Amino acid sequence: MRAMKARVYVSFKPSVLDPQGQTIHHALNGLGHAEIEDVRQGKYFEITMRGATDRERARQELDQIARDVLSNPVIEDYRIEVLE
Amino acid sequence: MRAMKARVYVSFKPSVLDPQGQTIHHALNGLGHAEIEDVRQGKYFEITMRGATDRERARQELDQIARDVLSNPVIEDYRIEVLE
Repeated sequence: MRAMKARVYVSFKPSVLDPQGQTIHHALNGLGHAEIEDVRQGKYFEITMRGATDRERARQELDQIARDVLSNPVIEDYRIEVLE
Repeated sequence: MRAMKARVYVSFKPSVLDPQGQTIHHALNGLGHAEIEDVRQGKYFEITMRGATDRERARQELDQIARDVLSNPVIEDYRIEVLE
């Protein structure tokens, strides 16, 4: 049975402040990386699905998982990438 | 002055346990997503560089930043993607 791999990327919406990214940004400037203008931090999930043969169905299921479990739609956006 | 965007992806090495990913994996199975076989969590950084015109130099700088600041090379791998 074939396994399908996918990645879900979750990041803050552009309007939401990202204090962790800002801290890293200032730390990098302080370390001499003066050309760093902005840092935003996000998270991603590498998901293996067993016996998923229909890419379209897999994508729909991942969309539901990303919306309901992996992200908070009020403050976060997500992006899905089906790999193989 | 042009800005260059890049992403740095940091994930646990395959040999390192990922309890957060495992918790999400079991939660998804419990919610009825039976075909989910594995979940690994990672983080990523979206970085804007000011006045970076030389992609190769930018990549070298990002490599240093990823190794020294954004990841722990003992337990984590990283991957760099220069976008534009």
